[in-house]
Amino acid sequence: MSGRAPGVVVGVDIGGTKVLAGVVDAEGRVTRTARRTTPGRRVVTSRVEDALVEAVVEAAAGAPLAGVGVAAAGLVDRAGERVMFAPHLPWQGEPLRELLADRLGCAVLLDNDANCAARAEATHGAARGAGSALMITMGTGIGGAVLLDGRVVRGANGMAGEFGHMQVVPDGLTCECGRRGCWEQYSSGNALVRHARAALAAGQPSVLHETADGDLDRVSGPMVTAAAGSGDPVAAQAFASVGDWLGVGTANLVAALDPEVVMVGGGLSAAGDLLLEPARAALRRSLVGGAHRRTPDVLAARLGPQAGMIGAALLVSAAHAQR
Amino acid sequence: MSGRAPGVVVGVDIGGTKVLAGVVDAEGRVTRTARRTTPGRRVVTSRVEDALVEAVVEAAAGAPLAGVGVAAAGLVDRAGERVMFAPHLPWQGEPLRELLADRLGCAVLLDNDANCAARAEATHGAARGAGSALMITMGTGIGGAVLLDGRVVRGANGMAGEFGHMQVVPDGLTCECGRRGCWEQYSSGNALVRHARAALAAGQPSVLHETADGDLDRVSGPMVTAAAGSGDPVAAQAFASVGDWLGVGTANLVAALDPEVVMVGGGLSAAGDLLLEPARAALRRSLVGGAHRRTPDVLAARLGPQAGMIGAALLVSAAHAQR
Repeated sequence: MSGRAPGVVVGVDIGGTKVLAGVVDAEGRVTRTARRTTPGRRVVTSRVEDALVEAVVEAAAGAPLAGVGVAAAGLVDRAGERVMFAPHLPWQGEPLRELLADRLGCAVLLDNDANCAARAEATHGAARGAGSALMITMGTGIGGAVLLDGRVVRGANGMAGEFGHMQVVPDGLTCECGRRGCWEQYSSGNALVRHARAALAAGQPSVLHETADGDLDRVSGPMVTAAAGSGDPVAAQAFASVGDWLGVGTANLVAALDPEVVMVGGGLSAAGDLLLEPARAALRRSLVGGAHRRTPDVLAARLGPQAGMIGAALLVSAAHAQR
Repeated sequence: MSGRAPGVVVGVDIGGTKVLAGVVDAEGRVTRTARRTTPGRRVVTSRVEDALVEAVVEAAAGAPLAGVGVAAAGLVDRAGERVMFAPHLPWQGEPLRELLADRLGCAVLLDNDANCAARAEATHGAARGAGSALMITMGTGIGGAVLLDGRVVRGANGMAGEFGHMQVVPDGLTCECGRRGCWEQYSSGNALVRHARAALAAGQPSVLHETADGDLDRVSGPMVTAAAGSGDPVAAQAFASVGDWLGVGTANLVAALDPEVVMVGGGLSAAGDLLLEPARAALRRSLVGGAHRRTPDVLAARLGPQAGMIGAALLVSAAHAQR
């Protein structure tokens, strides 16, 4: 418990759909959680802050707060004071850290959710003991983080780790960001669904015809992931393509950074080796200098949906340790 | 002079064609140099070490050696003990650092030449004062280095910064490395020459017809760079394409690492804005999140061919400072 103020440390992960708060102990164990629904993007910002404060207070259950860490699904400024922009949250530069510190009466620290998840995996999860690691988060798109010497690289604008918008195909598929050929158009939940729909539309046999009631628009990432788990050929084929592109893009990052370990998190990582085996094969095939290096392991992240919350709590411990 | 042992610090840069040694003072100024021809790749390794020792002794001119830093054009192991592999040098894992320390009777430190050049530019050159920077070296191929918190990221295998073999075109042009679509096939001295030759073969008017005596095989990177400087349209067009691809690949690295500054070094950087302006335009066009960030400056490296030598000497100062 060295370096900790008395009381409990609470980590909060705020995403587009839910607010998840938890008391996290010094070993990264979550001892009590609370949850709220995210009020949405088009509400006054104080309503989101209300939900966040309520979840923290409920999780703490009366214990004094040693500090609160917040993992936000959005762009956090370099100083860790503000959420500058978030696709599913109303904040646009409000001084969130200070507002929450005033309301909660304790130290509050703030970072991006992918950074927090990476920090948690590096300290208590899949990259424990690694000096350097990449975290690649496979959700609707691709998020990520770079860990060097055990620290998250935040970048000059707090924007390091935007792997999903690295261009892998010139004049390729159009991306939500307005450009073309972004990596996440080929390797992500969206790509998975696109592959599955194309195969279903071509009449390939699959359990997904039934799961989606014959309506291709209803096919979702979690549906394809579940189908893959039960051996569905269309789902397996979609994961093979998405996994292959995961390995190709990972090889680019490994060429640049030469990390010890690559972790893959996010919803798609639930498919395990169906995603990771094609990624490992493509990484071995695509990586420069294979004869002179140890190709990094590609591991599934271990902490699951609690990673962001645990990593947020680690912000508090790290700040205490630096005093 | 704090932290320096008495005597002079010598930096040595050993490439495929020459060995360049120089006495470097605490402000990064080179006060005396010596040069030898690299004995080649197919000689006994001791001959290369002889040339290196001779150049150091001549540069020191009788002054006691406080330490020697070596920048080698090859893969240096993570510990900085050995050159594991070098395309133009005979070393294959010999314990070079120790061998040279024994022969020179002083501390010797060893790193890859691109890392040394980046360290020099960060301390005394284009990235002075920047917390994070990328160095992109545009020669025959693309080399590079990542600087974070003023330190070079060496990587788990000492192989960070291999930017040239990031894949930018699926099933693209064949690369010397055996794969296809590597960045350096689109943006490098080799790419520049390929563009120029194609334009000349198509009969486009250019001073290069004359410079190369009508023999396309004689067209070289330095020739095209010189022609561009005098306003030659074929050379300018070749630089426009290479510069555009430089910006596209740079955008990928900036998305991942969000550095403050991007430095471009190597022979092609002599073309200045002919190379850098198309690169800046492509970076602005290709970089994600432009509305929420400051796009990093793309600057020409400043220290030229002495950067490796100066950065090698900095290895010694850094080691002294850590004592």
